[in-house]
Amino acid sequence: MRTADEHAVAALALAPAPVPVELDLRDALGHVTARPVVAHVDSPPFDNSAMDGFAVRWADVRLAALNAATESAPVTLAIIGESRAGVPATVALAPGCAIRIMTGAPMPDGADTVVPVEATSVVDGAVGIREVRSEGAHVRRCGEDARRGDEVIAAGVELKARHLAAAAAVGAGRVTVYRRPRVGILSTGDELAALGTELRVGQIYESNSYVLDGAVRGAGGDPVLLGPVGDTVADVLAAIASADVDLIVTTGGVSVGDYDVVKAALAGVGVEFMSVAMQPGKPQGLGAVDGTPLLCLPGNPVSVAVSFELFVHPVIRAMRGLSPRLEWQQATVGAAWTSPAGREQFMPIRFEADAVVPATSGGAGSHLMARLAVADGLARVPAETTEVRAGDSLRVRRFAG
Amino acid sequence: MRTADEHAVAALALAPAPVPVELDLRDALGHVTARPVVAHVDSPPFDNSAMDGFAVRWADVRLAALNAATESAPVTLAIIGESRAGVPATVALAPGCAIRIMTGAPMPDGADTVVPVEATSVVDGAVGIREVRSEGAHVRRCGEDARRGDEVIAAGVELKARHLAAAAAVGAGRVTVYRRPRVGILSTGDELAALGTELRVGQIYESNSYVLDGAVRGAGGDPVLLGPVGDTVADVLAAIASADVDLIVTTGGVSVGDYDVVKAALAGVGVEFMSVAMQPGKPQGLGAVDGTPLLCLPGNPVSVAVSFELFVHPVIRAMRGLSPRLEWQQATVGAAWTSPAGREQFMPIRFEADAVVPATSGGAGSHLMARLAVADGLARVPAETTEVRAGDSLRVRRFAG
Repeated sequence: MRTADEHAVAALALAPAPVPVELDLRDALGHVTARPVVAHVDSPPFDNSAMDGFAVRWADVRLAALNAATESAPVTLAIIGESRAGVPATVALAPGCAIRIMTGAPMPDGADTVVPVEATSVVDGAVGIREVRSEGAHVRRCGEDARRGDEVIAAGVELKARHLAAAAAVGAGRVTVYRRPRVGILSTGDELAALGTELRVGQIYESNSYVLDGAVRGAGGDPVLLGPVGDTVADVLAAIASADVDLIVTTGGVSVGDYDVVKAALAGVGVEFMSVAMQPGKPQGLGAVDGTPLLCLPGNPVSVAVSFELFVHPVIRAMRGLSPRLEWQQATVGAAWTSPAGREQFMPIRFEADAVVPATSGGAGSHLMARLAVADGLARVPAETTEVRAGDSLRVRRFAG
Repeated sequence: MRTADEHAVAALALAPAPVPVELDLRDALGHVTARPVVAHVDSPPFDNSAMDGFAVRWADVRLAALNAATESAPVTLAIIGESRAGVPATVALAPGCAIRIMTGAPMPDGADTVVPVEATSVVDGAVGIREVRSEGAHVRRCGEDARRGDEVIAAGVELKARHLAAAAAVGAGRVTVYRRPRVGILSTGDELAALGTELRVGQIYESNSYVLDGAVRGAGGDPVLLGPVGDTVADVLAAIASADVDLIVTTGGVSVGDYDVVKAALAGVGVEFMSVAMQPGKPQGLGAVDGTPLLCLPGNPVSVAVSFELFVHPVIRAMRGLSPRLEWQQATVGAAWTSPAGREQFMPIRFEADAVVPATSGGAGSHLMARLAVADGLARVPAETTEVRAGDSLRVRRFAG
């Protein structure tokens, strides 16, 4: 039997290369940059004031800096205009004069320093300057944030709110990012009933499409529901053939039973089925049909949650242009449990203070879905370990979505 | 001047109570439960097989358990039917007989134990049993995961993929959650140019709606663009009056300048403007107009990012039904910087190994947006601290979105 890590490598080999696409910045949140985002303009695009106050010439006001201690207003300048954000002054600054200026407004020609309004007093169209700090004070310089042509966001970055704002500030209205993968979700089984209907004898409610829908979104993909379908080979093949997606994930029908429909439908046409030395999630399949990669998971909901995290999640990350590698941390075990010999166990766990404990009192049982709701993540128990003891250290990972 | 914490308390007091709404489970991802999710059916809904194999009576096969060491097949049973997932057996199990059973299929009447197919051999319509484990082996009991009426998900839980699956498994097709708040975003300023246009003299690209759009989504709200609008009181009032939202966030026009349009428009009609002892983000406003709460942030993009996190994010969390409290961790400073006296500083920082360093070489400058793109989060420097030194411990928080 292959190990879970070996199966994950095989799954990742199926991932198509990420597809670059140019998007409006408004639609780019959460996408990964395929190319660096470069400044189209200097930022700020012009020298401007950091304060509300008066634009002045240092040569006219430096005396005020020396005389600040006197609290008099030794320098008086004639107000000859105004510069507002978006409405620049129409005159240049002449010697002995000042131009009223607002935060963000362009520095007038001839001005080199801003005096904040708090350090001035205005009488009869003239401004008295009580205090100035230094030459160039309160002036934001053109390009001090970024120069036209500078790389503002590197390639390979997942775009967050602050990245969008930075791209907007430098005029990058369109960005080249990797397309989000469309992930088809196909639940199979004659026993599956739709929510909102009454259960007939032998039926259960279909739940795998719900965990996969949420998990695909959490991983940064766009889920597309292709099912559910019953245990009919033709229905499985039809659902797959008509899907316009980048990756298909099926659940159920991959085991050794006489009615394992996914296996029956796909074993001859490009998908391989095998046992993986893990609990839960032993029966797995993977391959490609008509160029579309497929990952075939077992049908039990906890197996689906575990298999998604180990095998599907890294593939979606790779298709988005991110490193497929998932981080696992070390954590201390807070309560003992048992694990099967010869299979790596993936136990749903909760974090309690600094330790992890099983989320389900019934073990890693692959049908204990209602109890999985209280899990924070998974712990992995090595294949050779059969007894997990309080105080042991295990690798753990929190669920992403 | 009030402190940032005091302003955050005032902002939170404006948050309307969260609004419960019943949603289809398919639409509930990311919402917070307003009522517990309760099992509509037992899970599993019937006793069923955990393996592919044969449903048998323990009384018929217990001899095989004793004789396992012989590797013979001491017990042979007539195969009288089949139980598949979704297609139960049509006969009850008679003594001396076996019914073929698939994983997840209902246990036939009269059967109490499952023998996995690997421990059997079939010849001429009869099955030889080589080995059995114990009475009741490989049977999943009705309700062992959850009983009808059990609380499967508590109130106040943010619904993740695994919660959706758990709700589906117990037949909860509709859930009562809190509505996501619609958050109106209104950027103001005559200087703002739209992306895709050429900058005229004195113009900058409008970027605040981009950071707020992403930050609102990251916080779990639905952004609604109300602007941008220029520095005209009538336009600001019209944009606010026509908005159908639960909360409005404005940027710009809140300072002491002669053209601070948000202040001019709203100071008399329910919004209060004040200085907050923080850097950046000193000028702020808050209040309500026609029953809709407003948070009025300054216009500089870094101030917007900081103000969002401190004042808007907790309000959105409260409106979603979550605790508004944001977590801050302690971190060690890796490189020195300065901070103004008398104001709490919020410095955009990067994590480098185990320490934090300023993300911007130019200080906490509120216009250094392009450099904010490389920030991981914020560090808060107490108002009385003017020199931050390597090795100091500060409170820090990673950006959520």
